[in-house]
Amino acid sequence: MFIEKSVTEFLDALASKESVPGGGSGAALGGASAAALVSMVCNLTIGKKGYEDVEQAMTDILQKSEAIRLELPQLLEADTRVYGKVMEAYRLPRKTPEDKAAREAAMQAALRDAAEVPLTIAERCAQIVDLALPAAQMGNQWAVSDAGVGALLAEACMHAALLNVYINLSSIKDEQYAADVCARIQAITEGKGDTKEQVMAIVREKIGA
Amino acid sequence: MFIEKSVTEFLDALASKESVPGGGSGAALGGASAAALVSMVCNLTIGKKGYEDVEQAMTDILQKSEAIRLELPQLLEADTRVYGKVMEAYRLPRKTPEDKAAREAAMQAALRDAAEVPLTIAERCAQIVDLALPAAQMGNQWAVSDAGVGALLAEACMHAALLNVYINLSSIKDEQYAADVCARIQAITEGKGDTKEQVMAIVREKIGA
Repeated sequence: MFIEKSVTEFLDALASKESVPGGGSGAALGGASAAALVSMVCNLTIGKKGYEDVEQAMTDILQKSEAIRLELPQLLEADTRVYGKVMEAYRLPRKTPEDKAAREAAMQAALRDAAEVPLTIAERCAQIVDLALPAAQMGNQWAVSDAGVGALLAEACMHAALLNVYINLSSIKDEQYAADVCARIQAITEGKGDTKEQVMAIVREKIGA
Repeated sequence: MFIEKSVTEFLDALASKESVPGGGSGAALGGASAAALVSMVCNLTIGKKGYEDVEQAMTDILQKSEAIRLELPQLLEADTRVYGKVMEAYRLPRKTPEDKAAREAAMQAALRDAAEVPLTIAERCAQIVDLALPAAQMGNQWAVSDAGVGALLAEACMHAALLNVYINLSSIKDEQYAADVCARIQAITEGKGDTKEQVMAIVREKIGA
């Protein structure tokens, strides 16, 4: 598994001419880092003097950010697998009409999976943008910039993951499914730019930048 | 060293209540991933049929992106060390006026280092935004989204690293130095949002999103 490699080995693999890990995995790792930073803000707040009133709220945020932090590395791995499935289907024989039909069916099924995984990565990143806001508002003031880094990274990685959704979507022939995915993208991204800006405004105010 | 840990162990450390690694290191890792993706686009282009005319240009981009990809993990480690130095200075005795003066001098020196490291991280991320543009323009069309992910991640991590510059700057008393850093930030960030948008426009056009 790529996530069991050291950070430097993972970066070597990402830079190599092998197609996996690629952009989807990079987005998942960035999202996981963002989730980890939101968790860190919570961990630096819970049990700290002066933050008793927000302890329960921060504990709730932590539970959510940790679930996403642990899920995103699994999605990083899944992204490399679904890409492999598309390549496998692409290489199927296409001599006879039956071959062609079987290959096309395999391609379409693989492309759906290859769209669903980065769509889930984008959704989790969007959830981290939302969690960064209360973390910045209520969390330990000394760690507010970490909530800011989390929001910046998560919002960028949401858009990054969506690029991989669009690529696969452009080859999917089921128009109803494609329209459905576009509606889901709309729901995932809506307001996230504004939320990130709100987080940044709080961070700037608290750090005096 | 944190970068010798596995990806999952690094994320555990990032999420923990230990202050390091923190947001600066998260920004450095995101920037390194962005650099790796620009390198991947180059590696998927160099030697490929149909891309003979851009081979030299892509080789030049690769040399630059790889230098940055290998430097950013070192800056990730450096960021954890300079934070430690600030904390060390903070804990120095402050009983006598001599103590206080020595502590203040140590603090100011440590804060400068703690501003310089994320400033260099931001500068390297900005350079990756610039390299993502020719990579998207000339690189293997099949990998164009990876250049897009690189640009998104690098631009976000540039801003993320700068948050850590501002935090330390707000405690630095040398106004000339602070003004100098602000001018350097201006030079680093100028036009990078536009460059990222140019990359995204190319990516959207090429993937038909």
